[in-house]
Amino acid sequence: MQWYVVASVLTVLTSSQGILTTLSQTNGRYRYDYATVPFLAEAFKLLVSSVFLWRECQSSTPSRMTTEWKSIRLYPIPSIIYLIHNNVQFATLMYVDTSTYQIMGNLKIVTTGILFRLFLRRKLSNLQWMAIVLLAVGTTTSQVKGCGEASCDSLFSSPIQGYMLGILSACLSALAGVYTEYLMKKNNDSFYWQNVQLYTFGAIFNMARLVLDDFRGGFEKGPWWQRLFNGYSTMTWMVVLNLGSTGLLVSWLMKYADNIVKVYSTSMAMLLTMVLSVFLFSFKPTVQLFLGIIICMMSLHMYFVPLSKLVDLPLTVKIAPESVTEVPVDRRTDS
Amino acid sequence: MQWYVVASVLTVLTSSQGILTTLSQTNGRYRYDYATVPFLAEAFKLLVSSVFLWRECQSSTPSRMTTEWKSIRLYPIPSIIYLIHNNVQFATLMYVDTSTYQIMGNLKIVTTGILFRLFLRRKLSNLQWMAIVLLAVGTTTSQVKGCGEASCDSLFSSPIQGYMLGILSACLSALAGVYTEYLMKKNNDSFYWQNVQLYTFGAIFNMARLVLDDFRGGFEKGPWWQRLFNGYSTMTWMVVLNLGSTGLLVSWLMKYADNIVKVYSTSMAMLLTMVLSVFLFSFKPTVQLFLGIIICMMSLHMYFVPLSKLVDLPLTVKIAPESVTEVPVDRRTDS
Repeated sequence: MQWYVVASVLTVLTSSQGILTTLSQTNGRYRYDYATVPFLAEAFKLLVSSVFLWRECQSSTPSRMTTEWKSIRLYPIPSIIYLIHNNVQFATLMYVDTSTYQIMGNLKIVTTGILFRLFLRRKLSNLQWMAIVLLAVGTTTSQVKGCGEASCDSLFSSPIQGYMLGILSACLSALAGVYTEYLMKKNNDSFYWQNVQLYTFGAIFNMARLVLDDFRGGFEKGPWWQRLFNGYSTMTWMVVLNLGSTGLLVSWLMKYADNIVKVYSTSMAMLLTMVLSVFLFSFKPTVQLFLGIIICMMSLHMYFVPLSKLVDLPLTVKIAPESVTEVPVDRRTDS
Repeated sequence: MQWYVVASVLTVLTSSQGILTTLSQTNGRYRYDYATVPFLAEAFKLLVSSVFLWRECQSSTPSRMTTEWKSIRLYPIPSIIYLIHNNVQFATLMYVDTSTYQIMGNLKIVTTGILFRLFLRRKLSNLQWMAIVLLAVGTTTSQVKGCGEASCDSLFSSPIQGYMLGILSACLSALAGVYTEYLMKKNNDSFYWQNVQLYTFGAIFNMARLVLDDFRGGFEKGPWWQRLFNGYSTMTWMVVLNLGSTGLLVSWLMKYADNIVKVYSTSMAMLLTMVLSVFLFSFKPTVQLFLGIIICMMSLHMYFVPLSKLVDLPLTVKIAPESVTEVPVDRRTDS
């Protein structure tokens, strides 16, 4: 399968996530416990990956599986990073308002580029760096509050701790992505076997969180497994399936494409959600949304379109014939 | 002289134009007739160019001067286009509010690129086209009204005539620039001789406007020459000298660089004015100004930085040695 097909499907599914979640509410509130959704999504991903792994093991060429503890012990690390990230996120929101938090979230596009370069040692051209910065600028532009909006908190008026935590949050989020890519690519183990390890730990960590919440709440609402499917509608199941599927696609991209592709995919999804909201929830379109979309499209072009299609001036003429085919075809450092 | 030095000086002078004009007011109003300023600026440019032409004629290698009517009759055309443009501008403002008008003004960046391609037959790479669009997007972003600003007219609520006239206005403005470039480059006449022709007609057209205004106003304030220097302060003279100097620099760019350089120069000036206003007039900085500056800087890089500095991946390695020096040095089609 081509990476851009997977990335496009991921964009559509990610953008429908917010919409499905809104539609799963009844009269503006959840009739189910939202905290159970991520756990079920992990369980779904584990189930799907297990089935595929089992089928793969039955086939004529059995799966490559590294079962040493030295390898397995690396798989809870993404879950641990996300756990720390969630707490930093919580702390950040004590210092900054949600719209500043949302704007700062775009920083993770740039931190992903930086960690991608530093940890995975992937080289990016200056043009690609510019594209990454523009993607962050474009998504930020689309989120700028319009004239006449109700709350007008200034982006520059939060305490310094808020910004430091926001940067830390962006680094942790990028680190989790980059680390997962490292895990998926470090050997050519079966994709499904890697997923099974990842999601087993994911399910455990999510379950631990539900248990912890129960203890914190003094079991007021009963133990988590009793309210697991309480108030679940078809739409709730759609939310679970959607979240699970996006997770599987991200995993695929981590192994067969890279973090930058994922970042583009989710950024485009954010814009798509805003456009769809215009039609579905009569969200008022703003000039800044329109400008943000143009900027992100330019960025997408700059990053992915082969160089030969961006600059047609002297290249093809001046390059010696034997090197023509090698030069402009693909600027991306991996495939 | 290098074109980028001239372009940088033009940026600084253009951005100080608005600031000087504000400073030339006394208690928020003009104590002089502002309509006399463009006329005096034309007269200043004519004077300076005449002096230089005279000095050039005295030198050992006399100036090349085409004095046929067939050539001279082309020089009033830019003034005529500006005259039509002013009227279209006036008509546009009857349909749209000033902030929509300002936002639509950024269209002239794109129309300049298009007419530059069509009329001057200058080829631009896709990357350069993207840079031009990004420049327009960047300047527009910086002008987006912030949260909480007083007037909140929607950009999308004007009648269709307003938008059509706005587009026409952007085309006329671009046409005047592109036509002037054509005039300045069509032969290698002395730069000063070309200027003398351009500014003679410029002064005549501006004078005609003053006379027309007098007739329209029924000579209430007396004939224009009587109030030419009325209420002029040192600051007013600075405004005149500044306007005249920017005109001369634009003229130089039209002959030795091109319209795109001019467009970048004046766009950067617009951003510089906004930044200076933050310090001088305690204008409140917005996120969109910050984003707009980043976008325009990226655009500047994409357009002007040599390709070899944007993409360092396979190019230098794969190109045959004898062509290395020719390929990436300069992507611009003229010098």
